[in-house]
Amino acid sequence: MTKVMDQRGYQKYWNEERETLDPEKRNEIILNRIQKQLDYVYHTLPFYRKHYDNHNFKPSDVKTIEDFSRKVPIITKKMLVADQLENPTFGSYAGPFKSNEIARIQGSSGTSGTPTFYQVSKEDWERAAEIHAMAMWSTGLRPDDVIQIGFPFSLFFGGWGVLQGAERIGSTIFPLGAIESDKHLDLIERIKPSTFSGTVSYCMHLLMKAKEKGIDLQESSVTRLIAGGEIGASLPHTKEILTNGWNASLHDAGSTSEMYPFMTSTACESQSGVHLYQDEVFTEIVSGDDPHQPIAMGERGAIVYTHLWRQSQPMIRFWPGDESFMTDEPCSCGRTYPRLPHGVLGRLDDMLVIRGTNIYPSAIENIVRSLSWSSAEYQIIVDKKGALDEMLVKIEYKNERREDQRLQMENEAKELFKTKLGIRIGVELIEQGSLPETIFKARRVVDNRKTS
Amino acid sequence: MTKVMDQRGYQKYWNEERETLDPEKRNEIILNRIQKQLDYVYHTLPFYRKHYDNHNFKPSDVKTIEDFSRKVPIITKKMLVADQLENPTFGSYAGPFKSNEIARIQGSSGTSGTPTFYQVSKEDWERAAEIHAMAMWSTGLRPDDVIQIGFPFSLFFGGWGVLQGAERIGSTIFPLGAIESDKHLDLIERIKPSTFSGTVSYCMHLLMKAKEKGIDLQESSVTRLIAGGEIGASLPHTKEILTNGWNASLHDAGSTSEMYPFMTSTACESQSGVHLYQDEVFTEIVSGDDPHQPIAMGERGAIVYTHLWRQSQPMIRFWPGDESFMTDEPCSCGRTYPRLPHGVLGRLDDMLVIRGTNIYPSAIENIVRSLSWSSAEYQIIVDKKGALDEMLVKIEYKNERREDQRLQMENEAKELFKTKLGIRIGVELIEQGSLPETIFKARRVVDNRKTS
Repeated sequence: MTKVMDQRGYQKYWNEERETLDPEKRNEIILNRIQKQLDYVYHTLPFYRKHYDNHNFKPSDVKTIEDFSRKVPIITKKMLVADQLENPTFGSYAGPFKSNEIARIQGSSGTSGTPTFYQVSKEDWERAAEIHAMAMWSTGLRPDDVIQIGFPFSLFFGGWGVLQGAERIGSTIFPLGAIESDKHLDLIERIKPSTFSGTVSYCMHLLMKAKEKGIDLQESSVTRLIAGGEIGASLPHTKEILTNGWNASLHDAGSTSEMYPFMTSTACESQSGVHLYQDEVFTEIVSGDDPHQPIAMGERGAIVYTHLWRQSQPMIRFWPGDESFMTDEPCSCGRTYPRLPHGVLGRLDDMLVIRGTNIYPSAIENIVRSLSWSSAEYQIIVDKKGALDEMLVKIEYKNERREDQRLQMENEAKELFKTKLGIRIGVELIEQGSLPETIFKARRVVDNRKTS
Repeated sequence: MTKVMDQRGYQKYWNEERETLDPEKRNEIILNRIQKQLDYVYHTLPFYRKHYDNHNFKPSDVKTIEDFSRKVPIITKKMLVADQLENPTFGSYAGPFKSNEIARIQGSSGTSGTPTFYQVSKEDWERAAEIHAMAMWSTGLRPDDVIQIGFPFSLFFGGWGVLQGAERIGSTIFPLGAIESDKHLDLIERIKPSTFSGTVSYCMHLLMKAKEKGIDLQESSVTRLIAGGEIGASLPHTKEILTNGWNASLHDAGSTSEMYPFMTSTACESQSGVHLYQDEVFTEIVSGDDPHQPIAMGERGAIVYTHLWRQSQPMIRFWPGDESFMTDEPCSCGRTYPRLPHGVLGRLDDMLVIRGTNIYPSAIENIVRSLSWSSAEYQIIVDKKGALDEMLVKIEYKNERREDQRLQMENEAKELFKTKLGIRIGVELIEQGSLPETIFKARRVVDNRKTS
């Protein structure tokens, strides 16, 4: 097979056969792996055995991919946490590995209490490097690129998968982790990386910091942002701000710790959404109310993920509570993987019900970022006044704006919220720099109804 | 060749032939590599070409290892910094590498101004992994060990080489970096690593923190400390405190950024000092006054390092300003590499001249740590009173000590300083926790003579 080449003289695909495979043939592989994984987890991992027995489910019930969606019980983060508490340290879904078979131990950031611990076997770590390299290659990253990594290197998976993928590609790695923004900006100027990788919030934060310091990131060496760790990199207006501000392509690279370091999806150079690597992590979109109800292409629903190869802590029909929609329309890049055109849209858990209307914080974010005068930071505050829910959005406005334009700006925002979301939302303009800086993951919703 | 096995069923040596080679045969390899490196740097790297021409030195002048010591001009950190300023970013000693040939970019911590930048080619990175694995294997680290890494993962080389070596060995890696001490201690209890790796200061710091919290690290899972990043892990009393406090073997693993990630030396399981990997980084001990005057085994002198294989930023006769002495007496481990029995003793630059007497801070440290009532922290303050130099050592004493024993303790310390160092030194006892905590590298000398 003759390899397709790119404009820089490298092969266009990391694994051409795999990435451009006829979807029907890929489905055969997927079904085969689904059946093998179900057998493995049922016979080897007590967590799944118990769960499936409780639901009267047997692996042999699955004869088709549709059976898989309709019959296999989902699992949730809550169940994993409970299982790790009962079966320390890695849970009864960890697998029968000896310590010499384990490559890595990591943990969730554990901001709220005990962290969840992750264990990755050597074989899994090897596979994960391969899928990470494939995903990062699809963003255009090549051996002659220099990648500056701004994800933390610590307990959390953060930068470790990015490092692993870029190492396998053979790019030059400049691994800085979570250091001061000033230092990151200074080192971008000195080392001149082609690529920067960090959370969406952090890419946004550096953009603001650069403006404050009079540095124009449009003129920097960075032409590619690989952003992950939280949802939002594919929201249209967030994407627009980052793409313009950095004068760089932005590649959403997924955000689900339980699936990591296996990449679920990444945005290719065509910028038409994120490709789902269905033969590595099988992704379904199902009804938000019924995880056994598959949903048609193009319709919004809940995401369900399945590791097709992972042996240590495999996730089989994991429900992260994320919402999105899928398409299988051809992508100009030639990859035959289906896509989430706007990535993950939001978390079902994050959904706010305001006077009976469902509002996703991501929808607010998208509107805030469409306002020409808004800075990147905002905060959503929800209160109950008597029986009524009240939502207020505090928006930082750019310093160059004059004080006497406040009313006009406020009205513009209120009007947009009303039109796009269908309900009245309060707006308060605040000066740039008033809100706490976002370094790692943004926390932008304050729901006072929960505490009162 | 039949491999020698260890008690755990693994082979005893990472590379038996290499590590137990007849020193005469090794010297042939060393001379050959010296000549090849001199040719390479003279003909390829302007920094060396200019330096050698200025000293009328030609690579062909070197016919023996002794010629190397007697004829090749040394280089210093100061020269490297100046060269990087003149030839940004990596200096004219970086080598003719294209970006697709470079694996890593790192930098010095750069606490005082502009950092020095390091660039490691892919071939060099590969060799460095091998020597790192060999060094860490000699500490007893095996594939069934879990290693918790407490070196920072950032700009500085910190934990990157340790990670690389442990990955190659196939140990389970738990890479935490510079997180809060409480979290490190908590995770030692949860994950139960066999091995902890961090700076000497940090191993000491965790020991104190554990005591404060009522955690007995003697009872922890950790049986091996791999310490580096600063000198001192081989000082007898520091070693005693760490070995006892952690109930673990302590392995000094070198500290020179310019030579990193190539390991110069590491302490094996026999605990008889650090083995010098002469066929990777050739180490000489020469006169502190004359770098071309080799010194006999057993006598104190200045260390000079040479990369025998590194192509990107190779250091040829690099003078770090460290002092030590060497022995080639056989080690019970069977390795035929010579040793520094007490590691690096101190830095020549750090030497304090107090009323005409040379005092190394490391000598003070060793005495402070021999005091049964002292905590790990101390500070050395030097002042000029009129024409006289005055040295005061502030020593933290353990909280359990009664206030009324102060005088007795002070006298004990003063007496010891007088006996061991030959001069009168002031002592001030301070409560535990008074001095700033040491997280990464300790800064313990305040010389007020320099600023006044």
